[in-house]
Amino acid sequence: MTEKTTETKVEEAQTAALEIAGTSDETRSDALESIAEAIDANHDAILSANEKDVREAEQLLEAGEYSQALVDRLRLSPSKLESIAAMVRSVAAQEDPLGKTQTARELDDGLELYKCTVPIGVVGTIFESRPDALVQIASLCLRSGNAVILKGGSEASHSNRVLFELIREATADVPDGWAQLIEARADVDTVLEMDDEIDLVMPRGSSAFVSYIQDNTSIPVLGHTEGVCHVYVDSDADLSMATDIAYDAKVQYPAVCNAVETLLVHEAVAEEFLPEIATQYEDAGVELRGDDASRAIVPMETADEADWETEYGDLVLAIKIVDSLAEATRHITTYGSKHTDAIVTDDADRAGRFMRSLDSASVFHNASTRFADGYRYGLGAEVGISTGKIHARGPVGLEGLTTYQYYLEGDGQVVGTYAGADGKPFVHDTFDSSWTPGSLSER
Amino acid sequence: MTEKTTETKVEEAQTAALEIAGTSDETRSDALESIAEAIDANHDAILSANEKDVREAEQLLEAGEYSQALVDRLRLSPSKLESIAAMVRSVAAQEDPLGKTQTARELDDGLELYKCTVPIGVVGTIFESRPDALVQIASLCLRSGNAVILKGGSEASHSNRVLFELIREATADVPDGWAQLIEARADVDTVLEMDDEIDLVMPRGSSAFVSYIQDNTSIPVLGHTEGVCHVYVDSDADLSMATDIAYDAKVQYPAVCNAVETLLVHEAVAEEFLPEIATQYEDAGVELRGDDASRAIVPMETADEADWETEYGDLVLAIKIVDSLAEATRHITTYGSKHTDAIVTDDADRAGRFMRSLDSASVFHNASTRFADGYRYGLGAEVGISTGKIHARGPVGLEGLTTYQYYLEGDGQVVGTYAGADGKPFVHDTFDSSWTPGSLSER
Repeated sequence: MTEKTTETKVEEAQTAALEIAGTSDETRSDALESIAEAIDANHDAILSANEKDVREAEQLLEAGEYSQALVDRLRLSPSKLESIAAMVRSVAAQEDPLGKTQTARELDDGLELYKCTVPIGVVGTIFESRPDALVQIASLCLRSGNAVILKGGSEASHSNRVLFELIREATADVPDGWAQLIEARADVDTVLEMDDEIDLVMPRGSSAFVSYIQDNTSIPVLGHTEGVCHVYVDSDADLSMATDIAYDAKVQYPAVCNAVETLLVHEAVAEEFLPEIATQYEDAGVELRGDDASRAIVPMETADEADWETEYGDLVLAIKIVDSLAEATRHITTYGSKHTDAIVTDDADRAGRFMRSLDSASVFHNASTRFADGYRYGLGAEVGISTGKIHARGPVGLEGLTTYQYYLEGDGQVVGTYAGADGKPFVHDTFDSSWTPGSLSER
Repeated sequence: MTEKTTETKVEEAQTAALEIAGTSDETRSDALESIAEAIDANHDAILSANEKDVREAEQLLEAGEYSQALVDRLRLSPSKLESIAAMVRSVAAQEDPLGKTQTARELDDGLELYKCTVPIGVVGTIFESRPDALVQIASLCLRSGNAVILKGGSEASHSNRVLFELIREATADVPDGWAQLIEARADVDTVLEMDDEIDLVMPRGSSAFVSYIQDNTSIPVLGHTEGVCHVYVDSDADLSMATDIAYDAKVQYPAVCNAVETLLVHEAVAEEFLPEIATQYEDAGVELRGDDASRAIVPMETADEADWETEYGDLVLAIKIVDSLAEATRHITTYGSKHTDAIVTDDADRAGRFMRSLDSASVFHNASTRFADGYRYGLGAEVGISTGKIHARGPVGLEGLTTYQYYLEGDGQVVGTYAGADGKPFVHDTFDSSWTPGSLSER
């Protein structure tokens, strides 16, 4: 059998997208349960394919081409497979994001406009090495009625192929072709050019990779570039609270994008605050880099301009002392990435000023930046985190995989009736509705 | 005085964007009233600048470089200025789109998440010759708290400069720099490269122009490419209704994007329907182009493949006879532009199938495609029509100029408390709220 071309796969997905959009809530959630069962029943096949990937990766690790972290992320285990199946079931259990009437409006007698949620269509996804990413992305797209192009990392190709086949077989009740696997790196460029067929691209990977995608396609991109998050300890902060938050935001899980990278401290509290948190950081193995004022209080490396805009993703933290809330927000606006920024203060007014003057996706008062996450926000599983401002921001759940469509139900109305100085006026009254296309009028 | 560079203007807009986002509803609507008053009080200055543009355009018309339609669109008059001022006042009167709490959720005791509407930030707009476009776009951006870069057509440069100065002077209470005028064509490319400073680009112009913008920037683009709209007359259509709708959709205003371009007719009703509508079209001067089956019923030009995908924007219509609803939706999916498509039928079930199987921004049952418009939809003034699927679809009003931001109010919570097998569970209860940043907790 000849392998299908990427163009053919994308076109098949486009056809399937129109069909899967019309499937019922039950069809989609039952299909997800089938995927979970298929994972449960096929541990051996999955783990043996994964073993091949891990062996190949270990050889590249020995050759110095891969990192240990990459090999670790790649490795599956029976307990990991159980948690993947549980994730799929949690997506199945989520409320159907489709067919929600956002607005119903009477334009005139017998002329009713409905704005309802629908899938986006064909979503192109390009993701990193973890094989569970394939299952998670496919599950979220299926739940939200989207067709999906899946391009995983080549290092996970054996695992991805087995997982993809299981998903395809388990979803026989869903229109064929809704999920497509592509494998060669060159196929990514083909995908990026198919702007008539693909409605959204979701890259997951390094900031440089996401920027590359943004620069090389006219398809809208939903992605997360950098997470340069800040904690600002205000002059009116409860310093014990500030210590807990600053510690948690850096140390609890430093590799993730919502970890703090720069700590800003008001000069009025710096001498009291910095020595205590520095001791705690030191015990946790955090490397500190500070401006001159910070270094006058606690000995540490020098932070230069590059530090202010770096996402370390590691146990490294930049520290700067500021003379005002305004200097803090100016610093964040200049160097931040609009991901997540927090203020610690007991003064509600100053908290409000901080929150209103930043345009980051998430702005926190007296809480750790690490809360910026789809699960913690109560969105269920998340597709990813968006640092763009359009469509979906911050942690993106199923809702971010939907868009809306307008439906107008009339009984023969024409625009000529409403045109010109003598035209009939519109009514424009909104009403509550759970209308679906083809149902009888609700009024 | 040296003219500022485009880079400087965009950077000033970026600074102003953070400030205008925090202005009150009253400040923004009062500023719009001031703009309306300034237009009322300065008819002479505006009309004399406009006269220069019109004279220059007429010279180019004589030289064969401009069309009469362009000159007509360019020309202002006292009554046109009155309607522009009325439009500005109607934008002022619209409900504030900012600060609406979309979701409020208790994550845990004393840890509350608010998702609220905020402006997008800096919007770059590039628009056609009509000088009222500048006032309309600036007004909608101001109402929604966005900073705006305005690039009008060079043919309207005198009018645009006067209108821009009036707007700037009338909005002294709004943070300076919120509106920026750029004039040279070369500056467009500078704008398209400033993806760190500009959050959204809204081009208004030809389909080729919008595609050019999409292909030459990594900034998200909200625009409308083509309007290849369809009316499908089903076998169960009320043919008198079908005639009215097909006539209105083409003839009432053929130059606009929501006018029908292809009429699809079920074979069972074609012989009865086509002669009647063809007579009416003929009286209105519509040129018909049909497939062989249509031409066997009514003499007309031959439609070829190119006709099915052409937006005529004129009194020209393609006609095709189909053997089923499925063939109709297949044709629309293949050749349409996902703008607006309508079915005429008395069968609710078939209407539902039609509406569910198309992913156009607007899908109508028994109504003219010409209703696809922000004013008729009850959205107030519209920024434009979007044929993309991301962020805003179809007619885009003030809501499409907003995005959202997450605010988290805590009292010292850290993620460590909720992590791992023994972690505290989240509550995740939603509640009603009209919280604003800095106000005391509502629970």
